[in-house]
Parts: sequence; C-alpha cells; structure tokens
Amino acid sequence: MTTQSTIPGYTYGSPDNPPSPVSMDDLAKLEGALLFTEEDVQALRNAGDILVPQTDAILDVWYGFVGSHDFLLSYFADEEGPRADYLSRVRARFGKWIEDTCRATYDETWLSYQQEIAERHYTRKNQTDGGAAEGTPPIINWRYINALVYPIYATVRPFLEKGESDPEAVERMHQAWLKAVLLQSTLWALPYMREGAW
Amino acid sequence: MTTQSTIPGYTYGSPDNPPSPVSMDDLAKLEGALLFTEEDVQALRNAGDILVPQTDAILDVWYGFVGSHDFLLSYFADEEGPRADYLSRVRARFGKWIEDTCRATYDETWLSYQQEIAERHYTRKNQTDGGAAEGTPPIINWRYINALVYPIYATVRPFLEKGESDPEAVERMHQAWLKAVLLQSTLWALPYMREGAW
Repeated sequence: MTTQSTIPGYTYGSPDNPPSPVSMDDLAKLEGALLFTEEDVQALRNAGDILVPQTDAILDVWYGFVGSHDFLLSYFADEEGPRADYLSRVRARFGKWIEDTCRATYDETWLSYQQEIAERHYTRKNQTDGGAAEGTPPIINWRYINALVYPIYATVRPFLEKGESDPEAVERMHQAWLKAVLLQSTLWALPYMREGAW
Repeated sequence: MTTQSTIPGYTYGSPDNPPSPVSMDDLAKLEGALLFTEEDVQALRNAGDILVPQTDAILDVWYGFVGSHDFLLSYFADEEGPRADYLSRVRARFGKWIEDTCRATYDETWLSYQQEIAERHYTRKNQTDGGAAEGTPPIINWRYINALVYPIYATVRPFLEKGESDPEAVERMHQAWLKAVLLQSTLWALPYMREGAW
C-alpha cells in the first residue's frame, strides 16, 4: 500500500475510519455462506499478480461501461454534466481497490475500511471529494452497486487469461474474485439498511 | 404453472400480491447494469428444460448446504430446533422458484411477485406458513440472501452439465442463471432498505 499518499481520499488503515458493526464472527459466517475459503484467498493473491499491472486497462473497460449508461454516469454528474475531476479522483481509488480486493486481509482493519467505503456510497457520499463532487446526487442507489457485481466479475476474465494459460487456474481466480466482490457489495449494503435488517 | 394449487403459499400472479415499487423502466436499467439481455432470457429457457426435471436433486444439495450451517438453519428453527413442517413448505416453493427463474417474464406480474417474496423475507416472514413457522426468527437477515447468490449459482453447474455437453452452451446458461439470481436478490433487498436508499 505504498502508493496510498498519492491517491486522493484513500484512507485504508486510518484510525479515522469507522469501526465496522460486523464482528469477525459475523464475517466468518458470511464467508461460510459464500463458500469463501483459504483457497480463494490464495487464488486472489495470484489474481492480483496478474490484474494489478493491468489496472489502467481494466479501469478503461469499467469507465467505458459506466460512461455508456446515463443512469450510472449521472451519479458522477452535476446539472451541467459529468464531473471529470470527481470521476478522476474516484478512478484512482477504484484502481487501488482492484489491488486491495486481491490482497485483502479480512481482519478488523479491512472490515473498517469496508464500512468507510459503504458510508461513502450512502451516508456521506460527497464528503471525501469535496468540491469535485459538488452538485452530484447525495447517494449511490444501492441496487446499482449490487447489479455491478456482475460486470465487475465478468469483465476481468480476459485480463486473467492474459496472465494465466491454464483454464482451471483462470476459473479458480475468477470464482474467487466473484466471491470477493459479492462479499464486499454485501458488506456495503449495511448503512443502507433499516435497523437490524442487514 | 399448473402445479400452483399444490404448492403451499405459492401465489404467483395473485392480485393480492403487492404492487412493486420498481417500474418497468427501473427494471430495464437494472438489467442494463447487470448486462442482462434477451440472450440470457433464451439461455434461461434452455436451462429450465435441463434443471426443472432435476429439481429435487438440486434442492437436496441446497437443503444440505443450509442444514450444514447452523446460522442458516436457525432461520427455520424455533427454540426446540428446526421446524420440519416449515422447511417442507418452503422447499416446495423453492423448487418452483427454479422453474420460475428459468421462465421469468420480467413484466409487472413478475415484479409484483418479487416484491411479495421480498416482503416474505423481511416485512412479514412468518405469515405465509402460519403455524409451521411459529417461533422462528421474524426476518431473514439480508446479508445471507445476497451471500447465497454464490452457492445457488455455483451448485447448478453440474446439473446443467448433465443435460448439455457443449461447454459453451453450459457457460451461457450458467452466466444467465447468475445474472437472474443476482437480479432477484437485488430486488428482494427493497423492503430492507431505508427510504430512498434502494
């Protein structure tokens, strides 16, 4: 995480991140429900070796996808249109998120940053990026976060295939990636939910 | 849907189902975010031809999974343990859900039943099954619904492979199934969410 200081608003490990309401025991159960195991953790490490050097190309695909759907792009737009400065700040964090997903430690520090990310989508969306986010919608509607699990999953496959020729190893990394992304979108739902519903 | 009358609590198409707060336009956008297309609808039809005759075997796998995780089984248990009558009523609907997922019409009738299912998980969990559900927890916590998208997705693959020898056709059906399940878990989150958050 050596590039932390160069990424605007990136605060992994900061004591200012909120404590997660999710206990380590809750997390273990959630991993059980997701069939997420130590093998997935290892497969994600391997995926990271392949994906991290391709971060910019992956982000190009994802930003192309968001940019081609007005109802997604609108979350980054004020009344005059998309805010390039806001999109650019988010892009830097989104790139680091690829690495963080592949290297996740699944401990309390990690849970706390998941809660921070969740709150940045709902409770305090436009605070992190200050003026760059001014005039944009006050929340990201949760349905799109969960729906985007699919394209975020499907579109990494060709990038995994560029770095690994064994189809079984690709499949293992790809499935681990899907579980890791679904786990995060599930955690990010927390502040959106009614008391006790999550 | 000829077996409707034999399935306890199954009310697809009933005028008593609540109207969905999700408009057809909202649904189209959500499908766009999920990369869900007409090709997926067709692939799901093909998947239905293969999966529906194997419904009981699939349910055995899923019930085995739930039964082997106390924290999942507890939603179907009262203070004396798992309620066999409750599990059996839900099982009949869960089987029909496989068919319904493969034959879904994605219209207002379908959206209305998604809302009905969502409310049965949260707003009024124990009403449909009356005495059979008595003493069981008042809601299904939403995190497990979303997490179970993964096992519900992963475990159907061998069943698809039993009915289709072309790996590409299996993959198309399997991806369509994943999108359809993720779409439903996203819709089912609605009543759990704070006003406007969904």
